[in-house]
Amino acid sequence: MSSVSQEEAETKKTSELSLRLHEYYKGKIEVELKCPVSSFQDFSVWYTPGVAKPSLAIADDADLSYEYTNRGNLIAILSDGSRVLGLGKVGPYAALPVMEGKSLLYKYLGGVDAYPIVVGTETAEELVRTALYLSPSFGGINLEDIEAPKCFSVLEQLRKDSTIPVWHDDQQGTATVTIAALKNALNLTSRKLKESKVALVGAGAASVATARLLFLSGLPKESLIVCDSHGILHPEREDLDKLQLRNPWKYSLAIETNGERKKGGIKEALEGADICISAAAPGPGVIKPDWVSKMSKMSIVFALANPVPEIWPREAKNAGAATVATGRSDFPNQVNNSLVFPAVFRGALDVRARSITDEMCLAAADSLASYAEVRGLTDTHILPTMDEWELYTYEAAAVGTKAIAQNLARRTKSESELRDMAYRKISSARNKVKVLMKEGLIPNVPG
Amino acid sequence: MSSVSQEEAETKKTSELSLRLHEYYKGKIEVELKCPVSSFQDFSVWYTPGVAKPSLAIADDADLSYEYTNRGNLIAILSDGSRVLGLGKVGPYAALPVMEGKSLLYKYLGGVDAYPIVVGTETAEELVRTALYLSPSFGGINLEDIEAPKCFSVLEQLRKDSTIPVWHDDQQGTATVTIAALKNALNLTSRKLKESKVALVGAGAASVATARLLFLSGLPKESLIVCDSHGILHPEREDLDKLQLRNPWKYSLAIETNGERKKGGIKEALEGADICISAAAPGPGVIKPDWVSKMSKMSIVFALANPVPEIWPREAKNAGAATVATGRSDFPNQVNNSLVFPAVFRGALDVRARSITDEMCLAAADSLASYAEVRGLTDTHILPTMDEWELYTYEAAAVGTKAIAQNLARRTKSESELRDMAYRKISSARNKVKVLMKEGLIPNVPG
Repeated sequence: MSSVSQEEAETKKTSELSLRLHEYYKGKIEVELKCPVSSFQDFSVWYTPGVAKPSLAIADDADLSYEYTNRGNLIAILSDGSRVLGLGKVGPYAALPVMEGKSLLYKYLGGVDAYPIVVGTETAEELVRTALYLSPSFGGINLEDIEAPKCFSVLEQLRKDSTIPVWHDDQQGTATVTIAALKNALNLTSRKLKESKVALVGAGAASVATARLLFLSGLPKESLIVCDSHGILHPEREDLDKLQLRNPWKYSLAIETNGERKKGGIKEALEGADICISAAAPGPGVIKPDWVSKMSKMSIVFALANPVPEIWPREAKNAGAATVATGRSDFPNQVNNSLVFPAVFRGALDVRARSITDEMCLAAADSLASYAEVRGLTDTHILPTMDEWELYTYEAAAVGTKAIAQNLARRTKSESELRDMAYRKISSARNKVKVLMKEGLIPNVPG
Repeated sequence: MSSVSQEEAETKKTSELSLRLHEYYKGKIEVELKCPVSSFQDFSVWYTPGVAKPSLAIADDADLSYEYTNRGNLIAILSDGSRVLGLGKVGPYAALPVMEGKSLLYKYLGGVDAYPIVVGTETAEELVRTALYLSPSFGGINLEDIEAPKCFSVLEQLRKDSTIPVWHDDQQGTATVTIAALKNALNLTSRKLKESKVALVGAGAASVATARLLFLSGLPKESLIVCDSHGILHPEREDLDKLQLRNPWKYSLAIETNGERKKGGIKEALEGADICISAAAPGPGVIKPDWVSKMSKMSIVFALANPVPEIWPREAKNAGAATVATGRSDFPNQVNNSLVFPAVFRGALDVRARSITDEMCLAAADSLASYAEVRGLTDTHILPTMDEWELYTYEAAAVGTKAIAQNLARRTKSESELRDMAYRKISSARNKVKVLMKEGLIPNVPG
């Protein structure tokens, strides 16, 4: 059996197990009490008549909703199911298990409560309106799996109009962890971003945000080449007028990047590039080993599509890549949003940040890269993994500290206080799962 | 100290404790995992790549969302905060602690997961639209604390358009438990509803629904008298044209009830009535003891306003009422929605009912009344209390069974199977709280 078909067999096995366990557990998250109930007399404190008092206090000062409810630890994971994982437009119902998975990760890794909210509407205007209507319930909103270019306008509009921080994980989360991984991959090969040539394959949510963070990290715009499904973006593309109207974000990339004025497809984009970051379409076979072999020596290949990377890691390595990363947990170097979003919202909520800026993203990326570096970089260890759970406490504190520095925080804490807060909340989340498993209240996986 | 001021002092103490504990616990509910996590490898089953499989299965058949996610046990508690408890229009932020309290009760009493969703919009049209958008996330919707007459049109529209059951607790929940209490109060005094005179004080959400269930239970329409804030409803009221336009539900009551054509206010409505059911405005003093003394002998007085009843129970008793009930947990005979809504949704979800009918409400009321009757009726025991938790298993099974009989269920179970299901789910919810408290993961109330 070839290594490729081994990986395919492994994926199939994981899929079948997943289906079986989703049915057995009927989902992955539920509501739990966070306050004690010892007798039914307690309900007069938690509900009527006692609850009138905190309720009226909030009526006088809406900010007290952060003190008297779970709002300060709660976000919505909002999706219309228009671009779910690598599955495409599967709709809100099919998006639900993915959003529940995300909620599980938010809780277990970041101590953040997140309600999966899938909505039966698709227009940007209605998504924005729904998010704004929902905002009194939440301390933040994680937009998820919304197709481009709609996701750009939704995020921009909400960043303008919302009083709570809004984050689109497919843009900012992926971009942030990509920057962290890239930092260490460059470090390993003693290169600098500002002297590198980067090919971005795919021009969707993740790629557009990654380009923005790359520029903010020092990459000259002319050193970037971006490919969409029609090939390399350049100022003479025939569809440029249409792009300007329909997707001004991609249009800007076409105008500003690609100093060499390269034309062609992925193959041409990779020729001579130091770095390939692909968040395009599920593979394998989207990126050919032959094309990787034409990149510069000691090249860096991030093949991030889910559920199957654009090129299998082994193929990329055999073709000469020094460092390879994917989006999957079953390969080394998982460039995984899950290393970022739980900590970003942990930090943002703990300082009650008004928004989440690109600078806060870079603070998260730096924290993540350092955490891996301290433990020793190798070509299969450019990022920490999710089980090194203390990383989230450092990362959350870095994000919160940056928000304070940018005057976006409504509560000031020292970085070590923020770490302690994060530590307590994440430990508590993990301990609860452990205890419920031990007591059989979360049943064991059936044999 | 008079008994009245004793009760006021008690309310104040409960309020202060409530404020302090809401701040200490920062809310009452949170998200918890319901599936095990033993290592970070598990995430490839719960999230990517494994989750693609259940996701795609749901894309083919949306109904599988009930099998592979928590949707089948999950509802939204949706409120615009336009009429919160007896506090009035305090808005969505102030409504949040109340909705969290409701969620706590749903979980602890019914094993039902309920997300509190308070929304920053108030028009009926936008509330309906938002509920419809949200419906792919949920197995049902509990509308809460929405002012009349808006709540009537919102419920009617959603009952028509929604594919999941929608329930307005302030209408149906209050009406259901009122009918249960009334049944036993009549039983105690050996009277029949169809031979009684009933005065309904207040013509809001609860009263309109109570009237409907009273009629369905056999009360002749002409034996009912309804008072709103302008006095008794009758066909010659000057504001009748306006009513027809603005509140057709109340208009119908004005036309169809009050066979004696009484005019006047609460005082006149109570004269000679056997039963007073008031869900009007927080007291005390809204109903005067003197008026109660003019009711028929062995009268029944339900003073249901929150947080303070229209008349203190002791005052009503002293004025001659045989049986008195309030909405409060700190008095006997709590006519409390909490005896109903957890079981109604438990039953509706377990048979995957398409809607919740008035007949299902009466099935719940009958079950509740029987549960109390079996344990012995007295004037301070016409209803069970929330700590007799097994009542919810019987009530849920009765609701589910009625849904099946009405061809509204998408899953058929026997009544004993439904009881077992409810028992397992409610026990599990209670045991989780117990274990988390024992292990200190839900901290003790601070001294």
